[in-house]
Amino acid sequence: MSPIRVGVIGASGYSGEELVRLLANHPGITLRIITSRQYENMSLGSVFPNIGQYGNLLFSNPDELETISKETDVVFLALPHGKGLPYAHYLYEQGKVVIDLSADFRLQNPLDYELYYKFSHPYTELLKKAVYALPEIYEEQIGSSNLLAMPGCYPTGVLLSIIPLLKKGWIDPQLIEVFAISGTTGAGKTLDSKLLFSEISENLRPYGFPNHRHVPEILQEIKKVAMGKPAGVLFVPVLAPLCRGILLSITATLTANISQQEAEDAVLEFYKKAPFIKVLSHGMMPELKFVLRTNYLYFSIHLFTEKNKCLVIAAIDNLGKGAAGQAIQAMNIRFGLAQTTGLGP
Amino acid sequence: MSPIRVGVIGASGYSGEELVRLLANHPGITLRIITSRQYENMSLGSVFPNIGQYGNLLFSNPDELETISKETDVVFLALPHGKGLPYAHYLYEQGKVVIDLSADFRLQNPLDYELYYKFSHPYTELLKKAVYALPEIYEEQIGSSNLLAMPGCYPTGVLLSIIPLLKKGWIDPQLIEVFAISGTTGAGKTLDSKLLFSEISENLRPYGFPNHRHVPEILQEIKKVAMGKPAGVLFVPVLAPLCRGILLSITATLTANISQQEAEDAVLEFYKKAPFIKVLSHGMMPELKFVLRTNYLYFSIHLFTEKNKCLVIAAIDNLGKGAAGQAIQAMNIRFGLAQTTGLGP
Amino acid sequence: MSPIRVGVIGASGYSGEELVRLLANHPGITLRIITSRQYENMSLGSVFPNIGQYGNLLFSNPDELETISKETDVVFLALPHGKGLPYAHYLYEQGKVVIDLSADFRLQNPLDYELYYKFSHPYTELLKKAVYALPEIYEEQIGSSNLLAMPGCYPTGVLLSIIPLLKKGWIDPQLIEVFAISGTTGAGKTLDSKLLFSEISENLRPYGFPNHRHVPEILQEIKKVAMGKPAGVLFVPVLAPLCRGILLSITATLTANISQQEAEDAVLEFYKKAPFIKVLSHGMMPELKFVLRTNYLYFSIHLFTEKNKCLVIAAIDNLGKGAAGQAIQAMNIRFGLAQTTGLGP
Amino acid sequence: MSPIRVGVIGASGYSGEELVRLLANHPGITLRIITSRQYENMSLGSVFPNIGQYGNLLFSNPDELETISKETDVVFLALPHGKGLPYAHYLYEQGKVVIDLSADFRLQNPLDYELYYKFSHPYTELLKKAVYALPEIYEEQIGSSNLLAMPGCYPTGVLLSIIPLLKKGWIDPQLIEVFAISGTTGAGKTLDSKLLFSEISENLRPYGFPNHRHVPEILQEIKKVAMGKPAGVLFVPVLAPLCRGILLSITATLTANISQQEAEDAVLEFYKKAPFIKVLSHGMMPELKFVLRTNYLYFSIHLFTEKNKCLVIAAIDNLGKGAAGQAIQAMNIRFGLAQTTGLGP
Repeated sequence: MSPIRVGVIGASGYSGEELVRLLANHPGITLRIITSRQYENMSLGSVFPNIGQYGNLLFSNPDELETISKETDVVFLALPHGKGLPYAHYLYEQGKVVIDLSADFRLQNPLDYELYYKFSHPYTELLKKAVYALPEIYEEQIGSSNLLAMPGCYPTGVLLSIIPLLKKGWIDPQLIEVFAISGTTGAGKTLDSKLLFSEISENLRPYGFPNHRHVPEILQEIKKVAMGKPAGVLFVPVLAPLCRGILLSITATLTANISQQEAEDAVLEFYKKAPFIKVLSHGMMPELKFVLRTNYLYFSIHLFTEKNKCLVIAAIDNLGKGAAGQAIQAMNIRFGLAQTTGLGP
Repeated sequence: MSPIRVGVIGASGYSGEELVRLLANHPGITLRIITSRQYENMSLGSVFPNIGQYGNLLFSNPDELETISKETDVVFLALPHGKGLPYAHYLYEQGKVVIDLSADFRLQNPLDYELYYKFSHPYTELLKKAVYALPEIYEEQIGSSNLLAMPGCYPTGVLLSIIPLLKKGWIDPQLIEVFAISGTTGAGKTLDSKLLFSEISENLRPYGFPNHRHVPEILQEIKKVAMGKPAGVLFVPVLAPLCRGILLSITATLTANISQQEAEDAVLEFYKKAPFIKVLSHGMMPELKFVLRTNYLYFSIHLFTEKNKCLVIAAIDNLGKGAAGQAIQAMNIRFGLAQTTGLGP
Repeated sequence: MSPIRVGVIGASGYSGEELVRLLANHPGITLRIITSRQYENMSLGSVFPNIGQYGNLLFSNPDELETISKETDVVFLALPHGKGLPYAHYLYEQGKVVIDLSADFRLQNPLDYELYYKFSHPYTELLKKAVYALPEIYEEQIGSSNLLAMPGCYPTGVLLSIIPLLKKGWIDPQLIEVFAISGTTGAGKTLDSKLLFSEISENLRPYGFPNHRHVPEILQEIKKVAMGKPAGVLFVPVLAPLCRGILLSITATLTANISQQEAEDAVLEFYKKAPFIKVLSHGMMPELKFVLRTNYLYFSIHLFTEKNKCLVIAAIDNLGKGAAGQAIQAMNIRFGLAQTTGLGP
Repeated sequence: MSPIRVGVIGASGYSGEELVRLLANHPGITLRIITSRQYENMSLGSVFPNIGQYGNLLFSNPDELETISKETDVVFLALPHGKGLPYAHYLYEQGKVVIDLSADFRLQNPLDYELYYKFSHPYTELLKKAVYALPEIYEEQIGSSNLLAMPGCYPTGVLLSIIPLLKKGWIDPQLIEVFAISGTTGAGKTLDSKLLFSEISENLRPYGFPNHRHVPEILQEIKKVAMGKPAGVLFVPVLAPLCRGILLSITATLTANISQQEAEDAVLEFYKKAPFIKVLSHGMMPELKFVLRTNYLYFSIHLFTEKNKCLVIAAIDNLGKGAAGQAIQAMNIRFGLAQTTGLGP
């Protein structure tokens, strides 16, 4: 098979850089296009010296859409929310596979964009065509769609941790409590004084409460598997002094009389073919370093049956499984490659 | 009034160092004794160059109890759990005021020491004399006791955040969920490879779950104010890459039909005379840096009435309000000084 | 003596915040004015919750110069380079003591401002009136001037470490090599993506080479004590993942046949009345934590006589001795207070 | 070609872990043996969850030397200095290729082991057989030796940066000044309170001065290329709050009348076939992040001809080019593979 021709629009942000780093070691692709207005005409090697491959590839301008379309089979969009819409629209119309890492096609209700992202979505008909590309849940849909909306980093961690239990009807979707600790790359390269080293170091800062943009996304997906029950999420994210990674503590009310063993077995069964999901036994806890620079999600489940409570602790790398890694996993599925191609085991 | 003569046994650990640092700027005391086996006969200035005052005071051996007793009115014990028991016993018998920062006198049930601290308590009669010295709750008892058991860092943060609501009967003591993020000084100078910089940096590590030693302490104190109801705590502490400070997310079930405003007003009223408690308005969130190197507790309350849930976010410095600062606050109360003496405003 | 009435223009940057923090504990002053365009009309307590004193003082607009003049005896300027010139001019004309933490009055040659700071200095006559306010060297001049130009953080560390040896004629001013490691607050709250946590953490970045703005300042001051010899500096600063503090490694060629003991003795003699200078014995090395949150400079001298080389290792806190602390030290001298007032021992 | 069978003795330290991580992605080898007393009988996947490959391989006991010998063609020793000597001796006698990451075979003068490492070397005849395996300098010797002594991290960075200039006779070997900033993994997993997160964070600490163990190693190698001149090194290493990486500032006296361009050209020519050496143009500075998790050395040269000084700024990853990466590079050379196999480009 000839290699898949790949483009990355927005290749100089944190997700874009990670995409390029992973793609540089992907045996089934050839990287043809990387764009960055800031670094236009500079070489990849001069901007990111430690990526290694494709050192002479030049950053180009994202507006050269005809060239991008001609040169690629699949294009990743790693742009701030709202910025990639015209590119997505054009490339989708040209028959390209579009894999969007932003929120622009995640939400099915156009009103949510006005409420949470402060823009009116110009391509509501495309929203209907987009697949919410959580690979372990929607593998089949991913395989046949040309518009893949990659889930947010927090939703990825939360949803993969609780969907098996929700589908069993064992936990109550009406109130999922999520406490999250996140590194700083999750906020991108935004020039915000709150993201300066001097402000983050030796600090912990809750933010985005109570209406973080990932809340409607989590609710939308919980509802899909909640069998008609209403969904509710209490979400408290905290920014901590580290670059990458998310640790989640999730609590929910048990609605079934199950044992710790039954819960673990069900989750293991659910993910028995999922190469990137690692379920730790009761009593073991994931650490962030288990998942750094990988596409893994690690989690463990802890039942407090006498209190009817279920606790899940989960860890992912926001740039790996939470963004670039998962996007490549989706590309692999879409093009019929093994999910793990270019992503480690 | 002649200055209170103070000794610190265990002055070279993190809590001990912080005690000495604060005492060095306390206008009502004179520091007479600092002990450290490791630094015996070395000067304070040579070991902790930036403390400033008392630079020529020498570390002495903690076993010189007669001298310690003769030279002091009050002795702080800042030793690992179980190590200070004979000192506490001797000095208490000599009529000294003993302020113990360890857990050795916090728990009223001697069995808890066997379960959680792995030693059999040799002075169970002293346990009955000890006051759990949470200043905002037990000011009167602190004022008349010669054996002050300083609360743990996590319990200080949790209890001060929820006791006003528990006393009102507005939240259910049967399940308090606590998610905590902590810096590394909370673990002391223990030589554990998990506390090396190389292991902590860029990592987040849940630990001590589900039976952290602070759980029985929190339960004991909740029960005192729970009006006969059983108490339950789900406690998940996470170690993060910072030296000092604790951020807490606490959720509980509402048991009364109250409004956000009523809740805030009640808490403000409860703490109206407490100089170190800062209650932020709804929508505002404490950051760790608000409390670093202070004796403050900052917290805010967030009611989700449609879900019958109450969320509290709180921040303290584990070495300040969580240890050394609070111990000095207790000393101030015991000796009739203003609570804030030597502790800022 | 009635308290000195103090104003701080630019009280919300890192140096300004540190000034206010230190002034809040200064027994000889009363803080009357703090300005910040960003926080105008907000209270100090709401912006910097952990300062403690003056919590109700409101930030005002720096352009209200008449009020500022009327309310104060001394005004600190803690503004970006070039921004405080009109304030300095006005307040100086009004007879106020002006203590400027920026570079605006440090350099005596107006051309240096064009070369290094990219502006044409509008008050060249004031440059002649300004005193380079390095307290340990120019105490007398500070005592009688109303315009104090506070030295930069690097120059403070470098100059105080080598001036005793230069004055003796023991080291060659023609090539002083300075390798410096600095925390991030030295760069202020500038919105530069290179100062984001995600860029600084786990990185080390040389910068400002070879023409850092502190080079002409260091050269100017070396020349004053070089007895007619030309001066040369090779200056390599590196940004490291920490908030505060500077560690310096300085090497120079020995020009005299002196022993280690003679060198140390001479430096100790030179600084025998300097409360903030700590000279460590040969073989001991200053650590950054010795000086954090203090007004100390720690350094040690190491002679390699067989190579004719002298090495100095020095540490200061860039916000303490390198900025706000030293500015208060200068104020103390100017107003006849003990140098250490409000600054610890 | 059948894959090279590899063993790693000491696979649980930082260098050992990095070796295993790199070997897991090396296409020309099969990992047969990993030893660790601490983790004996535990699986690689359970100890280092994010390595990916070889998850089921069990850690074995290093004393099972017969098995190790039988199962491997090449054995890496990643043990503390002095601990691997009997393994090296045995395996070398068995005809295995031994690649030792410790200092045990770096120094040719046995007395240096007594002076700097405090042990008497038991295999002085083996010292003569060992090759100092700096790949860019001793490629030919590496190709034909069965005992490869991998250089230390600091010497690797220093030597590769200055050998081209020393060989030209352009800088004076009599005094090379090296100022180094290092992360904490360089010290290994030693249980030393000075390596605790609480001690390293927000600190900078010079250490190992003036007789760091890498000084005799650097001197030995400088002498080899100094054409009979004496060699001298002034070495000041500083520990900084980061896990990995070394940044070096090296100054030397120029002994020839060369230009910046000539110096750069000579270095580029010297390394024209070296895939891991990146020479930046004058005015550009390497940052640590350019080399993190790579086998690169980045450096730039800056001549100050009017002062007869040459400055080199260099960056390497102490676990990459400074240890595990370079060891694999040496293995590749020894077994006739491309140097870059398994190490990126």
